[in-house]
Amino acid sequence: MNGTNIENALCTAAEEFEKAFAKYFEHKDADLKIVSDAMRYSALAGGKRIRPFIVNEFCKLFGGDVSASMSLSCALECVHTYSLIHDDLPCMDNDDLRRGKPTCHKVYGEEFALLAGDALLTYAFEIIANAKALSDSAKIHAVKLLSSLSGIEGMVGGQTIDLESEGKSIGIDKLIKLHLLKTGALIRCAAKLGVIAAGADENALESADKYGEALGLAFQITDDILDATADESELGKPVGSDKENGKVTFLTFMSVEEAYTEAKRYADMAREAIGLYEKSQMLTELSEYVVKRNK
Amino acid sequence: MNGTNIENALCTAAEEFEKAFAKYFEHKDADLKIVSDAMRYSALAGGKRIRPFIVNEFCKLFGGDVSASMSLSCALECVHTYSLIHDDLPCMDNDDLRRGKPTCHKVYGEEFALLAGDALLTYAFEIIANAKALSDSAKIHAVKLLSSLSGIEGMVGGQTIDLESEGKSIGIDKLIKLHLLKTGALIRCAAKLGVIAAGADENALESADKYGEALGLAFQITDDILDATADESELGKPVGSDKENGKVTFLTFMSVEEAYTEAKRYADMAREAIGLYEKSQMLTELSEYVVKRNK
Repeated sequence: MNGTNIENALCTAAEEFEKAFAKYFEHKDADLKIVSDAMRYSALAGGKRIRPFIVNEFCKLFGGDVSASMSLSCALECVHTYSLIHDDLPCMDNDDLRRGKPTCHKVYGEEFALLAGDALLTYAFEIIANAKALSDSAKIHAVKLLSSLSGIEGMVGGQTIDLESEGKSIGIDKLIKLHLLKTGALIRCAAKLGVIAAGADENALESADKYGEALGLAFQITDDILDATADESELGKPVGSDKENGKVTFLTFMSVEEAYTEAKRYADMAREAIGLYEKSQMLTELSEYVVKRNK
Repeated sequence: MNGTNIENALCTAAEEFEKAFAKYFEHKDADLKIVSDAMRYSALAGGKRIRPFIVNEFCKLFGGDVSASMSLSCALECVHTYSLIHDDLPCMDNDDLRRGKPTCHKVYGEEFALLAGDALLTYAFEIIANAKALSDSAKIHAVKLLSSLSGIEGMVGGQTIDLESEGKSIGIDKLIKLHLLKTGALIRCAAKLGVIAAGADENALESADKYGEALGLAFQITDDILDATADESELGKPVGSDKENGKVTFLTFMSVEEAYTEAKRYADMAREAIGLYEKSQMLTELSEYVVKRNK
C-alpha cells in the first residue's frame, strides 16, 4: 500500500470539496445571520471529508463525472454535519470541543445550534432537489437513500441504540448493529449516492452497499483500537476515553491483535466488493488506509 | 358563514388524516422503540390538522384526488410535528405541556425527543420519495418546496427571528416577516403541495401561495387577539401570556378592534386569491373560520 498516495488524494479531494461546499453557505439575510453563521461554522470546520470522497470516487468508478456527484457529496456532508452539531449538544454528548475548536452551541448558544442542525438536515434535501446535473429520477433515488439511511432506521437509529446501551453490557451483535447504523449507514449512503450520480445499475448499487458496510466496520474497529493504543499527540484527541467511560467497544470482546485482524478482514471484504471493477485502486487504497492509519 | 359546516369538515378531514398518518408509525424494531414511540407520541397527539386539510382541499380544488395528496399531507405534518418537539425543548421554549399533554421530552427525555424530531424531519422526505401516486417530477417539486419553506429561509428562519427578537422592541415589518416565515411558510407550503398533487399549473401555484400567505397572517393576528381577550376555559390554554412575557404582537401596534379589521382584511385576501375557482367554498369558509374562531 502506498499510504502517501491515498493521503494525498484525500487531501486534494477535500480541498476541491471545500470549494464546492462553501458556495452553499452564502446566505445574505441579516435577520437570519446567527443561524446561517452557525451552519457555515460547523459545515466548514474541516475534517477528512471521507464521505464526499467516497461519493465522488464511486461516481468515477462507474464512469460518472464529479460534476454530477458533487452536489450529492455536499448534501450528505450537510447531514453528517447536522448529526455532529446535535450529538455535541448538552442533552446528548455535551462536548465543548470538536476537532480542537469550540462546538457549535458553545459559540452560538444551544437554541441556535439546534436550529442550525435542523436547517442543515433540511438543506441536504434542498440541495438534492436543486442539483443541476441529475435527472428527476436520480434525485428521487438519492432522496430515498439519504432519508432512509439517515433516519430512524439508519443513523438516528444507531444514535438511539448507542444512547440506550449506555452503562449496559451489550453483546457483540448489538454492538455491530449499533455501528452499522450510527456510522455505517452514512458511509453506505455515500457509496450508493456515487453510483446514482453515475447512473449505474443495481449490481453496482449492491457492490457499493457491501463496500460501504464493510468499510464502516473496518473504520469503527480501528477507531476502537486507536482509542486504546494510540499516541495522544499523534491522534489529536484524548485516548483511553472509551475504557474510562466504561463503553462497550470491540476490545470488550477481543484482544487488540484480534481486533486488528477483524478490521483487516472487513477491509478485505470492502476491497473484494469492488475488485471486479477497473479503476477501483483509489477505493481499495482507502480500505487499506482506514485500517493502517494512526489518527 | 356557516361555522358548523367548516368545523364539521375539519373534524371529518382530521379523522381521515389520522388514519392515513398512523400507518406511517408502525416501526417494529425493538432496539429503536424509545425513539419510534416518541415519534408516534407526538405525531399522533391530535390537533386541528389544518395543514393537511389545506393540502387536501387545494388538491381537490384543482381536480385532484385526496389519494394523491394524502402522502404530502403526512410529510408536511411530520415537519410541523418535529418543529413542535424541538420548540418545546428546554433550550428553546422549555414547555412541559402541549395540548394538555406532557411534551415529548417530558415523557421520553431530552435526548430522545431531539432524535425523534430529527427522525420526523428526515421521515418527511422519505414519505415524499416513496409516495405512490406522484410522478418523480411532482415528488421533486414537493421536496423543493418543503425543504425551502421549512429551512433557514422558511420556518427555521422564522424561529431564528423570533428568538433573536426576544426582549427587543421590533417594528411591525419585522413582526410580519417573523410570522410569514415561522408559521406562514408551512401554510403556504400546504396550499402549494396540494396544487402539486393535483398536477396544476403555475397560476394555480401562485393563487395557492397568495392564499397561504394571507391565511397565515389572518391566523396569527387572531391568535394574538385570542391571547389577549379569550376566555381561558374556552381557549383551552392560559391567556394573557404574550403581555406577561413582554412579547411584541400585533396588539403592540394596534387596538383589538383594529387588529380584528386587519385579520379580516387578510382573510379577504385569502378568499380573493381563490375566488376565481369553482369549488372554493370550503377554503373560503376556512379563511372566515380562522378569524371568527374562539379557540
